[in-house]
Amino acid sequence: MKGIRSILIAFGLFAFACSSASAYGPSPLQDFCVAIKDINNVFVNGKFCKDPKLAVAEDFFFSGLNRSRNTSNPVGSNVTMINVDIIPGLNTLGLTLVRVDYAPYGVNPPHTHPRGSEILLVVEGTLYVGFVTASPENRLFTKILNPGDFNIGKTAAVAFAGLSSQNAGRITIADAVFGSNPLINPDVLAKAFQLNKNVVKYLQSRF
Amino acid sequence: MKGIRSILIAFGLFAFACSSASAYGPSPLQDFCVAIKDINNVFVNGKFCKDPKLAVAEDFFFSGLNRSRNTSNPVGSNVTMINVDIIPGLNTLGLTLVRVDYAPYGVNPPHTHPRGSEILLVVEGTLYVGFVTASPENRLFTKILNPGDFNIGKTAAVAFAGLSSQNAGRITIADAVFGSNPLINPDVLAKAFQLNKNVVKYLQSRF
Amino acid sequence: MKGIRSILIAFGLFAFACSSASAYGPSPLQDFCVAIKDINNVFVNGKFCKDPKLAVAEDFFFSGLNRSRNTSNPVGSNVTMINVDIIPGLNTLGLTLVRVDYAPYGVNPPHTHPRGSEILLVVEGTLYVGFVTASPENRLFTKILNPGDFNIGKTAAVAFAGLSSQNAGRITIADAVFGSNPLINPDVLAKAFQLNKNVVKYLQSRF
Amino acid sequence: MKGIRSILIAFGLFAFACSSASAYGPSPLQDFCVAIKDINNVFVNGKFCKDPKLAVAEDFFFSGLNRSRNTSNPVGSNVTMINVDIIPGLNTLGLTLVRVDYAPYGVNPPHTHPRGSEILLVVEGTLYVGFVTASPENRLFTKILNPGDFNIGKTAAVAFAGLSSQNAGRITIADAVFGSNPLINPDVLAKAFQLNKNVVKYLQSRF
Amino acid sequence: MKGIRSILIAFGLFAFACSSASAYGPSPLQDFCVAIKDINNVFVNGKFCKDPKLAVAEDFFFSGLNRSRNTSNPVGSNVTMINVDIIPGLNTLGLTLVRVDYAPYGVNPPHTHPRGSEILLVVEGTLYVGFVTASPENRLFTKILNPGDFNIGKTAAVAFAGLSSQNAGRITIADAVFGSNPLINPDVLAKAFQLNKNVVKYLQSRF
Amino acid sequence: MKGIRSILIAFGLFAFACSSASAYGPSPLQDFCVAIKDINNVFVNGKFCKDPKLAVAEDFFFSGLNRSRNTSNPVGSNVTMINVDIIPGLNTLGLTLVRVDYAPYGVNPPHTHPRGSEILLVVEGTLYVGFVTASPENRLFTKILNPGDFNIGKTAAVAFAGLSSQNAGRITIADAVFGSNPLINPDVLAKAFQLNKNVVKYLQSRF
Repeated sequence: MKGIRSILIAFGLFAFACSSASAYGPSPLQDFCVAIKDINNVFVNGKFCKDPKLAVAEDFFFSGLNRSRNTSNPVGSNVTMINVDIIPGLNTLGLTLVRVDYAPYGVNPPHTHPRGSEILLVVEGTLYVGFVTASPENRLFTKILNPGDFNIGKTAAVAFAGLSSQNAGRITIADAVFGSNPLINPDVLAKAFQLNKNVVKYLQSRF
Repeated sequence: MKGIRSILIAFGLFAFACSSASAYGPSPLQDFCVAIKDINNVFVNGKFCKDPKLAVAEDFFFSGLNRSRNTSNPVGSNVTMINVDIIPGLNTLGLTLVRVDYAPYGVNPPHTHPRGSEILLVVEGTLYVGFVTASPENRLFTKILNPGDFNIGKTAAVAFAGLSSQNAGRITIADAVFGSNPLINPDVLAKAFQLNKNVVKYLQSRF
Repeated sequence: MKGIRSILIAFGLFAFACSSASAYGPSPLQDFCVAIKDINNVFVNGKFCKDPKLAVAEDFFFSGLNRSRNTSNPVGSNVTMINVDIIPGLNTLGLTLVRVDYAPYGVNPPHTHPRGSEILLVVEGTLYVGFVTASPENRLFTKILNPGDFNIGKTAAVAFAGLSSQNAGRITIADAVFGSNPLINPDVLAKAFQLNKNVVKYLQSRF
Repeated sequence: MKGIRSILIAFGLFAFACSSASAYGPSPLQDFCVAIKDINNVFVNGKFCKDPKLAVAEDFFFSGLNRSRNTSNPVGSNVTMINVDIIPGLNTLGLTLVRVDYAPYGVNPPHTHPRGSEILLVVEGTLYVGFVTASPENRLFTKILNPGDFNIGKTAAVAFAGLSSQNAGRITIADAVFGSNPLINPDVLAKAFQLNKNVVKYLQSRF
Repeated sequence: MKGIRSILIAFGLFAFACSSASAYGPSPLQDFCVAIKDINNVFVNGKFCKDPKLAVAEDFFFSGLNRSRNTSNPVGSNVTMINVDIIPGLNTLGLTLVRVDYAPYGVNPPHTHPRGSEILLVVEGTLYVGFVTASPENRLFTKILNPGDFNIGKTAAVAFAGLSSQNAGRITIADAVFGSNPLINPDVLAKAFQLNKNVVKYLQSRF
Repeated sequence: MKGIRSILIAFGLFAFACSSASAYGPSPLQDFCVAIKDINNVFVNGKFCKDPKLAVAEDFFFSGLNRSRNTSNPVGSNVTMINVDIIPGLNTLGLTLVRVDYAPYGVNPPHTHPRGSEILLVVEGTLYVGFVTASPENRLFTKILNPGDFNIGKTAAVAFAGLSSQNAGRITIADAVFGSNPLINPDVLAKAFQLNKNVVKYLQSRF
């Protein structure tokens, strides 16, 4: 804990684009329901579960969150989501844990979690976090004067976040808008973002 | 109904950016709870309500959805949300109605509803609608080959949508990212969107 | 939209018998969960789903709501429910769309939706709508002096309604009371409705 | 317990008209929230609560359910609902208790609870109980050959029921249809129930 | 009903240890969903269901609650839980019924229901009931001066309770702490309960 | 992060006594609802909120979680709950953050959270964690052979936990059983825990 410079807690999105999308999963109907893979390509809302008599402690554990992640990418950050796909015992429990690594000056780009509010705990480095709300309209909340969910220190940073869903999802705005598969018609984006169509096409080539 | 060219129903976001953010409000605990204004600047989750004995039919009605809205704006569309702020009787009932007017070639720009899934009914004109999902990652679903929630016909279009929340919210991606108040640090956006900082500043000057 | 005479929005039941039965389904635990048929006669709360990688845009669409329905029946109305059984992509999204056609002077008989509140949009013709509440006890709310969810104009009418459930259900009071399978003991109904037993038997022969 | 002839448990409606309307209230956000009266004619979804430090055991108790109720009325039954209006401590807890007294051959008339499923326990006498479902359509389920939620024995009967809501509501079909305030237009009811208009008016004069 | 001495209703835990654990199950998405056994060792949150067309009245009934249970055990009480495992039709309905038999001076030991609040109805004998809350911290609520969920009369007692879950669960504190399988390390319990380690081991040998 | 020896994640209770009590709060009905104090001794389910226009970033932040807590107490641990009472912006968001400090060989005594499941992240030291389930009955799950939620290392330990509720509550079993206010009748506890009445009285004097 020596490395901790400051500890901040933020709810909602610690990014700048979409506001506090918050949806809670259904309550559990038994003590636990350890997720298993789909059966013959059939799925349910949530996950199928194994026989509770066969549950073992390993179904509820995960190790390795202490290891740094690679942040050598254009935005200089790396998000590790420990959700029900990683810890099967999280099924029906409405919680996800996230580790975010930041390179110096790295940015966790604007994003939204369609199913879950968020609480963020910085354990190493200094981060400036914020979120934009729908009402009041497009209001930006940040903790420090220099807004941005990016690392202003010269060293790497690490944060952990809790999400109120077993599968909160994550949509990075730029990727969804400019890098969908297939691509969105550039005429639409040009009009929506008030960008020249060539700029849109350039952006689409990057994402 | 003569003017109806085609009728399509889309769930989730009929825009292109953020996936199906879906959150249901709490169930009602009485037949109805007609919303009133805040009391002395105090609020609750949802709304305060008037005495049920004083409820009148007008608390549950709204007229005027048949009138066209002005679409003379850069994106060529106009969204009218009939939520609990407009019909106080919607409080606790988990429903919002929306009218969207499109100018010829108008676009309802990429957006997300943080609290509510959506079902869309086109009653006039032809629209191409779509949405992007978080998982499968950034997958674009559209009904017609030319993707886009915009009016490809030469005439105006009208759609109605139902949202599964009394106050679904609406975040227009471009406005939240480039037009928040205060503005997001342009360095953050430049890195996140892989745009030149001057382009970011130009965009911020437009929204 | 030329045909629209008036637009009214009603919540709850637009019928006269049972009050605002409102139940929300569980929140989705993933972006979507396109319903498939039961597997070997096994069911779940809601529906089984197909592999999300195999989802196509058609899973979320339905066309044909622009076509008039046949209203040549004793009550002079026809209800088309577009729920999860019709649009499999509605599964877990908590929404149903309904089209109601009315013949001149047609009546949508008193009914209740056991799982869902309702918002009604009249797109053609003139309707008088209302609902009865449990508390205040048996209070009737209507928008116009002549109460009744029936078409007082001389022309046909069309309304669309949104329900806050993927499978809101619909119980027509008269059918459930007098036309159940098997029939309810006429002695019970005679006492409950204060009707002569022969009247009950006559009614049971009609439904 | 000597008086107990048989014990049956039924879910859903123990009446014959409307199916299993089931809605759960929101989860509590604290240990308890003892309801108090409205404040200056302002209400909330559910109830305002008193200071938890002032809660006393009496807030959670009710006595007198052992006393027989008067069943001298046309239907020969009497329903006592012990909900949040009677026991303020039930607020946010999602439970209601009901006592039903039956005169010999008394009938608890067809009804629905808009917010709550039901479990019924007969503690004295013999009852035949049943319910009608929306899907399968208008299917009647009863436990004994002689269907009816009425006392077939020659003696009085008593049942207790639990409902899954702090305020489940209760709509007696016949009262809501024929005895609303103001009355429903008899033309509507005549068409909906396929009754002669004079029969409707006669019924309206009785309820 | 002659045997009824007093009738008390308690919410939450009628025991002394853990406070009002209250969790509601998800709302039903259809009229009913009669539980069946797991399929090939696969489970879901809640239960798989049978084809609704094959549902019969027996799926919703249970008889035998009028029979006394054996209370010849160290604590002098016997709890019979009628949950979804006993009545398959309770699936998705959010209700459980419980019968508790008490020997003279019997005790229903401190326990908690992890998923459900409780309402208690004493139908025979005299009971003193209570519960402890988390906030206000460790506050004990009891109805009578002599606290305890035990039978102070010289005769047996019977109570029925309703729980707001189809599978509320029940954890008897003493059994979970001192009788788990495998046993908890006695050093931990000695420190946590401030007991001598030998006392812990003695207790572990008893449960 | 140098001090991190191992990272384990546990759901449910990381204690030994009561199983996974899990209850989710209601979904938010607006972007945020920053909690304020009660108004004139009136409360609601959850909290009253301030005017959203007056919300500031500080409403969503908390600092100081990097400071060690004092663990000089009989059990050698200290639990700091950062819930809606500490961060008013958490209201309606369904999340709580917890810091737990352990002295060498300290124990976080058996406890339950009546409203919330839990995910635990060890950031310093070595902990052995576990939980007991209701079904399978009294089954103990632990990660390492030496069961116990206590620090087996010779140095202090720190863990952070996320809970799926804005106000999950916490009941320490031993305190609630033996240290309630007023005290539980020792006869009841003697019978329930199979302890000599004098041992019970001794324990009651300690808590």
